[in-house]
Amino acid sequence: MTTDTPRGQHAAAAAVADGDPSRSDVLARLISELGERVDTSDESLEAARSDKSGHRSSGRPIAVVHAASVDDVQRTMRIATQTRTPVVTRGAGTGLAGAAMGGPGEIVLSMRSMDAILEVRPDDLLAVVQPGIINADLNAALAAHDLWWAPDPASRAISTVGGNIATGAGGLLCAKYGVVRDAVLGVDLVLADGRLLRLGHRTVKGVTGLDLTSLVIGSEGTLGVVVAATLKLRRLVPGEVSTIAATFPDVRSAARASAAVTASGVQPAIMELMDATSLATAHAYLGIADPTPGAAQLIAQTDGPAAALEAEAIARIFAVNGGNVTVSRDREEGERLLTIRRSMHPAMEALGKTTLIEDISVPRSALATMFEEIARIEREYDVTIPTIAHAGDGNLHPNFAFDGERVPDRVWEAADALFRAALALGGTLTGEHGVGTLKRRWLADELGDDQWALQRDIARVFDPLGILNPGKVFVP
Amino acid sequence: MTTDTPRGQHAAAAAVADGDPSRSDVLARLISELGERVDTSDESLEAARSDKSGHRSSGRPIAVVHAASVDDVQRTMRIATQTRTPVVTRGAGTGLAGAAMGGPGEIVLSMRSMDAILEVRPDDLLAVVQPGIINADLNAALAAHDLWWAPDPASRAISTVGGNIATGAGGLLCAKYGVVRDAVLGVDLVLADGRLLRLGHRTVKGVTGLDLTSLVIGSEGTLGVVVAATLKLRRLVPGEVSTIAATFPDVRSAARASAAVTASGVQPAIMELMDATSLATAHAYLGIADPTPGAAQLIAQTDGPAAALEAEAIARIFAVNGGNVTVSRDREEGERLLTIRRSMHPAMEALGKTTLIEDISVPRSALATMFEEIARIEREYDVTIPTIAHAGDGNLHPNFAFDGERVPDRVWEAADALFRAALALGGTLTGEHGVGTLKRRWLADELGDDQWALQRDIARVFDPLGILNPGKVFVP
Repeated sequence: MTTDTPRGQHAAAAAVADGDPSRSDVLARLISELGERVDTSDESLEAARSDKSGHRSSGRPIAVVHAASVDDVQRTMRIATQTRTPVVTRGAGTGLAGAAMGGPGEIVLSMRSMDAILEVRPDDLLAVVQPGIINADLNAALAAHDLWWAPDPASRAISTVGGNIATGAGGLLCAKYGVVRDAVLGVDLVLADGRLLRLGHRTVKGVTGLDLTSLVIGSEGTLGVVVAATLKLRRLVPGEVSTIAATFPDVRSAARASAAVTASGVQPAIMELMDATSLATAHAYLGIADPTPGAAQLIAQTDGPAAALEAEAIARIFAVNGGNVTVSRDREEGERLLTIRRSMHPAMEALGKTTLIEDISVPRSALATMFEEIARIEREYDVTIPTIAHAGDGNLHPNFAFDGERVPDRVWEAADALFRAALALGGTLTGEHGVGTLKRRWLADELGDDQWALQRDIARVFDPLGILNPGKVFVP
Repeated sequence: MTTDTPRGQHAAAAAVADGDPSRSDVLARLISELGERVDTSDESLEAARSDKSGHRSSGRPIAVVHAASVDDVQRTMRIATQTRTPVVTRGAGTGLAGAAMGGPGEIVLSMRSMDAILEVRPDDLLAVVQPGIINADLNAALAAHDLWWAPDPASRAISTVGGNIATGAGGLLCAKYGVVRDAVLGVDLVLADGRLLRLGHRTVKGVTGLDLTSLVIGSEGTLGVVVAATLKLRRLVPGEVSTIAATFPDVRSAARASAAVTASGVQPAIMELMDATSLATAHAYLGIADPTPGAAQLIAQTDGPAAALEAEAIARIFAVNGGNVTVSRDREEGERLLTIRRSMHPAMEALGKTTLIEDISVPRSALATMFEEIARIEREYDVTIPTIAHAGDGNLHPNFAFDGERVPDRVWEAADALFRAALALGGTLTGEHGVGTLKRRWLADELGDDQWALQRDIARVFDPLGILNPGKVFVP
């Protein structure tokens, strides 16, 4: 991933030859201070232009800096401040909102190499980690201590803890076990000018001053660079897992069943919904028999000491709402039942189209109504919107698939209608993916102009020159 | 609590007679716009000078405004901005850090009358409330829906939800059920200039823009006035409660037993520790036989489906660490066992002295070491520091009792040593009471000068004129 110094120097010369002296100056200074950490290889510059959203920036960034230490990050930021060069902080590049795409005139600061576990304290239920560690790798290491970090985005096998923090990631387990914001006690943050701040605490309780840790979570690289995080851990949940899968004649009855589970007071660990198009797409991808046309699927998992009792209660609610129910108390059989749901993202990728993944959240009682709204928007805009949902917490991922890189106007219009419908139901624009570039056009609609301006002004306190991920989240 | 208009006009005239035209102008404008909401009675002005810390401001505020609506709050803030008059927002006045004390030249904005429950949604596990509602009153109303709001500060019978949010309150149940920050989805906030913002969301997940809701929680009246809050609720925990009480020969062995429970992975709902002096004080107050000299007490409570099993495990750990253990599976008997702990605050008050209640938090593994540090500080400064602790989460309340209103220098010096010891163990200055006036002198020590300045600058984005609770938290 890294390039050697002569090659970097060659790139600096090339930048001068390009007739861009400021860019060549920045590159020369980076190479002078950071040597082989500075990567200008074609592959790396090209890869840094996009994330998993399938979208790309308008061109290649100046360089990718592979930070190996806090000092590397501070040096990079000092050079960026002195030369007023934008910096795009990046983890594994698995984001879905276009927040970590680097473009012309920008430095991409990769934190992927800073992937150490600095400390695990089972007696205090905390760990201190560098941001580049992959979520699943961290959890594999914690399992040896009978511990886990609860945030479980669907990307956990490929996304970094730092990226999870930058987006305020969610996942499948959130209704029962919380989101990233509930599982981070503190972060070490390098500011735009290179200063290092230690935010937060190592204790269960702590209210000294303003909660800047929570402010950084979900800030998508606009406030600083997270170089370490103190994570709140949980004990692995003992006992059996029960899995309840059900097919419903249509998506509205599945959504109603899901809302009925929440209203009943039973708390599943996971409750996932697939609409008819999603289910058919996943079946086709896995090469299994087509589902009944129009049928939707709901799959729930319970854990902990009352898992079996809760599974029975959920199965009854599913059946009463028209579900054809299967229950398994075997952990492996449960994983097999979840395979269809987990294969949705690769199934969409395999269609060979570009996918715009929306990420609206609504109050759980509004889930069935939101699916009615999606059906209305499909009719009005003549589009198909395969949708999956973390039904247990009201977070929906409607997908728009199209050919080519450019999002068709009709898709933007349908997405706009989708967002307005969610907002009208008391919902929000993004539950767990963030705003990035893809949702920035709606940010002020949700926040209101006053709050939008206030948020931008707060970001300016951290970053007075506006060099941290400009053009993302807050568009001037 | 309110005063009539003629009386207010009389007060305005008195202010002019005092030779303070600016103060009289502010009062006249408040009365003109808010009429009988403006209270200048002797009792109210005097009461608004202090909170439950036992400390008082240097004199009476201009007036107490009893807001009855969002409009009242906006009008008050517009007048305050136009006249550059400081505003101290206040709930029930039960704070312990001197954050809500009103002084000369200041308007006290009381939210206590805005105490309505605006909405309860059992199917979405949320409620929307006005800030003046008492925590226990809210929970009594929620119980009818089989719901509760988990934050349970010891003051829950007398403190408001708005005050709980302003301080970022904790309580006894935090290790298992979280703090206020984990239980608020959004707040409506009136800014210093009177504009109304709606922060946060009604959904389980939501990452649209910066998390200003978390920033407001624990901001102690420095960012705006909370006029409504969307609260995240829980189902009442079904099943039995088990209570485990134990006396230990000394406080260190009790602290070690508590840390051993956390390290074992068993999660009690409550785990409270009383040192020898606290225990003797509470026994004397309740008129029960003196405890064994030097003996400390640890009391834990378990709930949920595994309550009885967890209680057995905790009892074993207590016994192994030298505890003389009693276990009860009866809810009323459990409450009786907790009576000694709950009577600590009234017992201290009954001594007729002024009490400075500290509020340090340390990582749970450091609890026994922190008690050794307290013993050292008692010897070095020749003071007695009766201490209770929310041992399950590592939050200690060391008490300094003294005669008269003024904190003796020796007490401040001992408090300083206490805080430095906590910080050296990875702890924090305040776990749940806030900074207010009493801990502001140490704020920069914990945050560092850079973070302190950054936090102050963020507050200035909300409040450019510096009229929101000036002199508290961030001392210029």
